[in-house]
Amino acid sequence: MTSQAPTPAYRRLSVEERRSQLLEAALSLFAHRAPEEVSLDDVAEAAGVSRPLVYRYFPGGKQQLYEAALRSAAEDLEHCFAEPPEGPLSERLARALDRYLAFVDQHDAGFTALLQGGSVVETSRTTAIVDGVRRAAAEHILDHLGVKDPGRRLRMTVRMWITAVEGASLSWLDGGKEPPLDELRDWLVEQFVAMLVVSAGRDPQTARVVRAALVLEGREGALGKLARAVLPVIGDAARLL
Amino acid sequence: MTSQAPTPAYRRLSVEERRSQLLEAALSLFAHRAPEEVSLDDVAEAAGVSRPLVYRYFPGGKQQLYEAALRSAAEDLEHCFAEPPEGPLSERLARALDRYLAFVDQHDAGFTALLQGGSVVETSRTTAIVDGVRRAAAEHILDHLGVKDPGRRLRMTVRMWITAVEGASLSWLDGGKEPPLDELRDWLVEQFVAMLVVSAGRDPQTARVVRAALVLEGREGALGKLARAVLPVIGDAARLL
Repeated sequence: MTSQAPTPAYRRLSVEERRSQLLEAALSLFAHRAPEEVSLDDVAEAAGVSRPLVYRYFPGGKQQLYEAALRSAAEDLEHCFAEPPEGPLSERLARALDRYLAFVDQHDAGFTALLQGGSVVETSRTTAIVDGVRRAAAEHILDHLGVKDPGRRLRMTVRMWITAVEGASLSWLDGGKEPPLDELRDWLVEQFVAMLVVSAGRDPQTARVVRAALVLEGREGALGKLARAVLPVIGDAARLL
Repeated sequence: MTSQAPTPAYRRLSVEERRSQLLEAALSLFAHRAPEEVSLDDVAEAAGVSRPLVYRYFPGGKQQLYEAALRSAAEDLEHCFAEPPEGPLSERLARALDRYLAFVDQHDAGFTALLQGGSVVETSRTTAIVDGVRRAAAEHILDHLGVKDPGRRLRMTVRMWITAVEGASLSWLDGGKEPPLDELRDWLVEQFVAMLVVSAGRDPQTARVVRAALVLEGREGALGKLARAVLPVIGDAARLL
């Protein structure tokens, strides 16, 4: 099939299109390498343009490109936990984690460099962007829990789980992406449930949240499986009651 | 009472003593302020010496002082989880956390600045020091669990808990040091137990560790209290079994 339209590669891009194209190239480079290992020449080469052209769009050079790429990645990440407030909590969390962990998988080296810190491109601005993602995730999760005015305990539990998810993600990348993603996802959902249950023992608000969430869970769902897997291990603990 | 000995303030310090004194002054400044807000003049003033003298001992200036102070703090922190391998696991963890959380309490602003990242003094060296503390803590905890050859699941669970503890510490500092330290400590111990139990449902090694640990726990101990607090909340979940 022949085409009348000019080949995209030769088409003159608008300012916005060119900017997006450069950002896309930067994102894919920063995803798989530490920022130290990405040069402006690499970005120019990946986008098929000259180095001066990159500078025309990003006069701040690599630092500006990195921050723009990070901001764009952060927007994607902030949407991970946006999920219709329907069905069992464990299933909503699983769908959100699927998106989050796919992001981790696709941005492996960049994700590690970003969260491990100490990188040359890390500034108070990049830290603020990462913290914004954590805050957005926490708000989404609190929404899913159906709490209007979350107290300190519940907020701390959610925050603890978010940092635990980050720790698990780093550890997963560090350990050759084992266990498989769907197993890691289910495990992290279970960890959240366990952390909530523990907090419920100390905090009436969290206890209400847990009771309300349990009502929606099914026997064949994540919590049913967890309950059956865990019971034989802690059966002996009945003497502690 | 009069003293024959010269007043310590006027005694000529040895090189080692002077170095320690400057480090001590830097540590107490970096503990309660962000590194951005500490100058070499502040360190000189706090130590009661001249700025050139500080430079004689630390030619690398603030960066070198910060890293030396961080290294010294890291050594303290690495000892937090060193605990005789005796008695119930929950009690050992509680004692270790007492030390860790006292450190967090005493180094509040510095701890936050260090872990939040994006600071001007943060380098791959400072990141490596912090990571060394996490690794040392993980090894101590795995020792307490009595595992010679910990698998991925168990390692990841321990690492997840360590990052959760960091998240909780930051959140605790951020929220005006509420709840009280001993409550936070007990809560974090319970979170570790819950995380281990969840992993035990997926990993035979972790299951063995949990069973062995449960044998040493008493009815009036942390786990007994947790079991009694949590049972009424999850009682309805029996239908999931």
